[in-house]
Amino acid sequence: MPYRKIPDETIRRLPIYLRDLTGFLKQGYKNISSKELSGHLGVNPWQIRKDLSNFGAFGTCGVGYDVEKLIRQIKKILKLDTIRKAALVGVGNLGSAVLAYPGFALYGFEIAAAFDNDSKKIGKVINKITVQDVSKIPSLKNKDIRIGIITVPRQASQITADALVNAGVTGILNFSPCRIKVPKKVKVITINIALDLARLPYYMPTR
Amino acid sequence: MPYRKIPDETIRRLPIYLRDLTGFLKQGYKNISSKELSGHLGVNPWQIRKDLSNFGAFGTCGVGYDVEKLIRQIKKILKLDTIRKAALVGVGNLGSAVLAYPGFALYGFEIAAAFDNDSKKIGKVINKITVQDVSKIPSLKNKDIRIGIITVPRQASQITADALVNAGVTGILNFSPCRIKVPKKVKVITINIALDLARLPYYMPTR
Repeated sequence: MPYRKIPDETIRRLPIYLRDLTGFLKQGYKNISSKELSGHLGVNPWQIRKDLSNFGAFGTCGVGYDVEKLIRQIKKILKLDTIRKAALVGVGNLGSAVLAYPGFALYGFEIAAAFDNDSKKIGKVINKITVQDVSKIPSLKNKDIRIGIITVPRQASQITADALVNAGVTGILNFSPCRIKVPKKVKVITINIALDLARLPYYMPTR
Repeated sequence: MPYRKIPDETIRRLPIYLRDLTGFLKQGYKNISSKELSGHLGVNPWQIRKDLSNFGAFGTCGVGYDVEKLIRQIKKILKLDTIRKAALVGVGNLGSAVLAYPGFALYGFEIAAAFDNDSKKIGKVINKITVQDVSKIPSLKNKDIRIGIITVPRQASQITADALVNAGVTGILNFSPCRIKVPKKVKVITINIALDLARLPYYMPTR
C-alpha cells in the first residue's frame, strides 16, 4: 500500500478534480496544467500540485498532466476502480431521490439493491431496482456490495446500520441527522444538509 | 462589521459547534471547556479555541465558555439571528424530502414558501406549506425571504436561480448537480452528494 497518510482535505478535493478532469477529457484535452485546472475550480495551482504529488502524480513542465492517466490514478487512489456497488435502505422521498440521482454515474457508482420495510413499496421498481424487504439485507453478503446508503427515518438508522454491517458493508453514507455507532473498520460519512444551510447566511448581505 | 476575514474552514465548523453546544445546553451544562467540546467532536481543543477567538469569544480559565452566550455569539456571527426564512423550488421527491427535513429547526430555519411548475402539485400542502405556481416566485420580494433552495431537475436550475435572484434572494442552496450563474452579491452553496460518496471507498478496507 504505497498511498499512505494522505490528508482528509486532499481526499475531499480529489473527487472534485476527477469531475473536472472528466469534463476536460470530454472536451478533447489530452494534457492539462494545474493552472488550467485551478482556473476552472477557483483553487490555487500549488494546492492542486501538492494534492496530486501525495500519490506520485507529477506533471511534465510545459506540458502539464496527462488527463487520462491522471483520471486513472485518482480513481485508483480513491478505490473507485474496485468499490462501485451500493445498497440503499429506505425508499421514501429522500431514498427515491437518491436512487434517481444522476451524479453517481460519473464516479462509476451503481446502486444495485434497495430495501424498505413498507409492504406498499416492496416489489416496486424504481430506476430499474426492485425494492426488497429489509429482512433480505443479509443477502448482500453473497454479492459484491460493500457500500450502504441509509435514507430511513432517524429512529430506524441504528438498526439499519447494524443490519448493513452484519451483511458485510464497510462504508456507509448516512442521511439520517444523527450519529450511528459502527465497528472501527466501518467508515461512515454523514450528510447533514442543515450544516450547509447554516453557513449560507454568513455570506449573504445584511439588508 | 467587526467580524472580518474569518476563514471559510472556521465558518464550516461553526454550525457543528452550534449543534453540539445546543445539545450540551439541553443536558443542563452552563459552562463548557474547549476540551469537553472537542472530546465530543473529535476535533483538537486548540482548533476550537482558535476558531472561537476569531470573533472574540474567549473562555474563562478553569471555567470554560458560557454555553448560552456562546450559542448566541455563534448565531450572530453566522447571521442565523436575522436570516431565517427560505423558499424552496421543485417539489419532487428531493424537494419533498427537504421540506420534511427535521434538521433545519435547530438553526432556526423555516421554509416559508414552496413552488413547482406541475399543476398536479400546485395547491398541495406539504409540511404546512401550500405549493404555489413558479410564476408566483416574484411575490417573494414583498416577504422577508432571502434564501432559495433549488431542488428542480438539472435543466431547470439556471432559470430557477434567475427567478429567485430577481425576487431578491441573495443566498442559494443548490441541489442540482451543475453550476449556476448568479450576480456577485449572491452566494451559492451547492450540495453534491456524489462528491461525498466518492470519498467513501478510500476509507474502506480492500478485500
